[in-house]
Amino acid sequence: MTNSVTSPIPNIPATTFPKVVIVGAGFAGLKLARKLIKSDFQVILLDKNNYHQFQPLFYQVATAGLEPSAISFPLRKIFHHSTNVIFRMAEVKHFDADQKRLVTDIGHIDYDYLVLAMGGDTNYFGSKSIEYYAAPMKTISEALYIRNKVISNYERAINIEKVENRKYLMNVIIVGGGPTGVELAGAMAELRNNVLPKDYPELSFSNMKVVLIEGGSELLGTMSPEAKSHALKYLQDLGVEVMLNAIVKDYDGQIVTLNDDVFLETKTLLWAAGIKPNRIEGLSPDHFAPNGRIYVDSHSQIINCSGVYALGDVSLLVEEKYPKGHPQVAQVAMQQAANLALNFKALQNGKPLKPFQYKDLGSMATVGKRRAVVDLPFLKFQGLLAWLTWLFVHLMAILGVKNRLFVFLNWSWNYLSFDPSLRLLIKPKYVRESERKELIEER
Amino acid sequence: MTNSVTSPIPNIPATTFPKVVIVGAGFAGLKLARKLIKSDFQVILLDKNNYHQFQPLFYQVATAGLEPSAISFPLRKIFHHSTNVIFRMAEVKHFDADQKRLVTDIGHIDYDYLVLAMGGDTNYFGSKSIEYYAAPMKTISEALYIRNKVISNYERAINIEKVENRKYLMNVIIVGGGPTGVELAGAMAELRNNVLPKDYPELSFSNMKVVLIEGGSELLGTMSPEAKSHALKYLQDLGVEVMLNAIVKDYDGQIVTLNDDVFLETKTLLWAAGIKPNRIEGLSPDHFAPNGRIYVDSHSQIINCSGVYALGDVSLLVEEKYPKGHPQVAQVAMQQAANLALNFKALQNGKPLKPFQYKDLGSMATVGKRRAVVDLPFLKFQGLLAWLTWLFVHLMAILGVKNRLFVFLNWSWNYLSFDPSLRLLIKPKYVRESERKELIEER
Repeated sequence: MTNSVTSPIPNIPATTFPKVVIVGAGFAGLKLARKLIKSDFQVILLDKNNYHQFQPLFYQVATAGLEPSAISFPLRKIFHHSTNVIFRMAEVKHFDADQKRLVTDIGHIDYDYLVLAMGGDTNYFGSKSIEYYAAPMKTISEALYIRNKVISNYERAINIEKVENRKYLMNVIIVGGGPTGVELAGAMAELRNNVLPKDYPELSFSNMKVVLIEGGSELLGTMSPEAKSHALKYLQDLGVEVMLNAIVKDYDGQIVTLNDDVFLETKTLLWAAGIKPNRIEGLSPDHFAPNGRIYVDSHSQIINCSGVYALGDVSLLVEEKYPKGHPQVAQVAMQQAANLALNFKALQNGKPLKPFQYKDLGSMATVGKRRAVVDLPFLKFQGLLAWLTWLFVHLMAILGVKNRLFVFLNWSWNYLSFDPSLRLLIKPKYVRESERKELIEER
Repeated sequence: MTNSVTSPIPNIPATTFPKVVIVGAGFAGLKLARKLIKSDFQVILLDKNNYHQFQPLFYQVATAGLEPSAISFPLRKIFHHSTNVIFRMAEVKHFDADQKRLVTDIGHIDYDYLVLAMGGDTNYFGSKSIEYYAAPMKTISEALYIRNKVISNYERAINIEKVENRKYLMNVIIVGGGPTGVELAGAMAELRNNVLPKDYPELSFSNMKVVLIEGGSELLGTMSPEAKSHALKYLQDLGVEVMLNAIVKDYDGQIVTLNDDVFLETKTLLWAAGIKPNRIEGLSPDHFAPNGRIYVDSHSQIINCSGVYALGDVSLLVEEKYPKGHPQVAQVAMQQAANLALNFKALQNGKPLKPFQYKDLGSMATVGKRRAVVDLPFLKFQGLLAWLTWLFVHLMAILGVKNRLFVFLNWSWNYLSFDPSLRLLIKPKYVRESERKELIEER
């Protein structure tokens, strides 16, 4: 590792406590930092953004149901009353495990323990054209981008005379039959069924397709057969066209090419099909599994990299019950973080460490109003009760009383009015490269 | 006027009603369109954005108190139940008064009556350097930009070791002592006094200046002496440095140069000092006053331009009581619009027209919590009661029950917690030219 000349991150108070540096304030990193409040560690939490993002509800931001602020939480606010946790907005560059030094764009910091919890980004499985034209949904900004894209496509469609020339602006195609894809497809269908026709009475919405494309033979891969079949039925009830065993081979910004030479027309291809762990320089290739996850032991320590830990989506713990590692979900991330916090304290007190053991609390997905599926360890149910369970669990998981209250009020309002009112096209001043050319040609 | 080849705006339903085309959905344009719902006119409302912006509360978006969505209202929603009003998102280019044709970026439209209500933009009084570096606040996007700028300056300040090198990132300087400037200065001072020190315990906030610069000898130019003196006292109580008779001569992005060779350090110069009417091609120079406003008669018709009207900030009606025209405020715009709606109907029914007569209902400004000034025609008061009056009047003026409810809840929350929670730096993917260079140099 080259040792570029950097100065230390300024204004970090001097301390005699061991330093825990956490990279990423997602579910794993934030949980760990919170568990270490008032501990005998100095915790330095780093993130690219100054807020924590509540990923499970991104799809509601994308479909105009919630504001970004309702599911984002300022990190500094969380640590107002803790003196041992310090937040810095920074992009990490690389670390040196021998020197125990992490280098960022605001300077370097020397750690006693380094925790990598950078999460994942969208995986396009190597397709440059899909990466260029499709819309991902891995950040709040990207969710907001989808909302703006859908609305602006409608504002464009209304200025096109011929019905057949409007189709590609009106259709919405979602790739990926996991919870994100299912929830996004359901919410888009509800927008089409209930909201858009009122906004655009001049357009015929029988022409608007909502298509969900899944490469495998069923939706919601890891859930129960009951959940899978109900989710499929709910989507079809809402008018979503579900295509199973369908692989997207190419996309040119307007035409989606599937296997078997099937072609679909859309400007709005939403990519919820894959996750790729974020990387940091400082590890050797043999630390990584082929899918980019970092091998860790049962204490979340990176194998053959003393003092450096990995949590959540970037980590891979191979054990008998999970030969391919644990699922890349919030639950695993948070449980790993809680376990690591305990182990850090045990280490400090000379007590024995506890290996991480994942307790699967179940999983759930919502398709639309009064339509959801829930798999608990000993109970599976669907429909209205599942939907209410989903609402309750997600509401309770949101950080901060104010956010919780505002999400609750928004949900109540949208439920009663069937009319989310956030259809504001607050225009970005920045245009994606893939759209710039097109806009120029249009004018 | 050159007649570029354009096609008509598509999908406008055929009608036998006369066509009223309204350019701009601000206070004037929107009021007129709403007053013409269910009338015997076909109304085509055009705006660059698909939402109406509630300008009086922009400063609360800029100071992290409200979300953009709380004070924006989707235009399509307002006209869900009216068949004669049609909205299109478009940028107007020019019009031809002889041909009665308006040309936009989505096609042309032939009108019977054309109403210009494009409002105003920021006036930098010819200074290119101020335009380049200062932050205006004439749109929701610009207000959000200010919020992001202030927060990111703090995230930068915390990484600077020497106190004197942080000053320019921490100081906030506001130019313009009208209601916008006063309200912005008060809210920024409250942020500094109550919120920022909790977020950035490592920084000393005695170093953060909030300065309000006014070129004239007093604040709130058109208000009563009582209002002026109270507003000044309230600002000073909050720790705002008010500089009267001070003219900004230049700004290089870091140093503000005033007359008398006074220099102030800041990265955050907020420009609330002037308004410049938006223009459209199609009028001759003698239609405009030197300040860019368009001369209209007492029926809001542009003088010597039959069938074309101007409302609100772009219009100028010279009469005995207002030799320089009416103030460019929401009240005038809305009253003009209401008058014009009545006159359009009178015209249709062959009844006599009513000249516009402005009824000044008073004016008010808020400086901070429990600190506001109100001038009513026969009563002036300040303090807590004025503040409650201000809250009530603005709440009632907000469009839509949901927005009103959410603004009310936000205000209550912020009042009780003294902690607006919207300090999210949702990063724009676009960087202003003036900042791009600097960011590159920094890295």
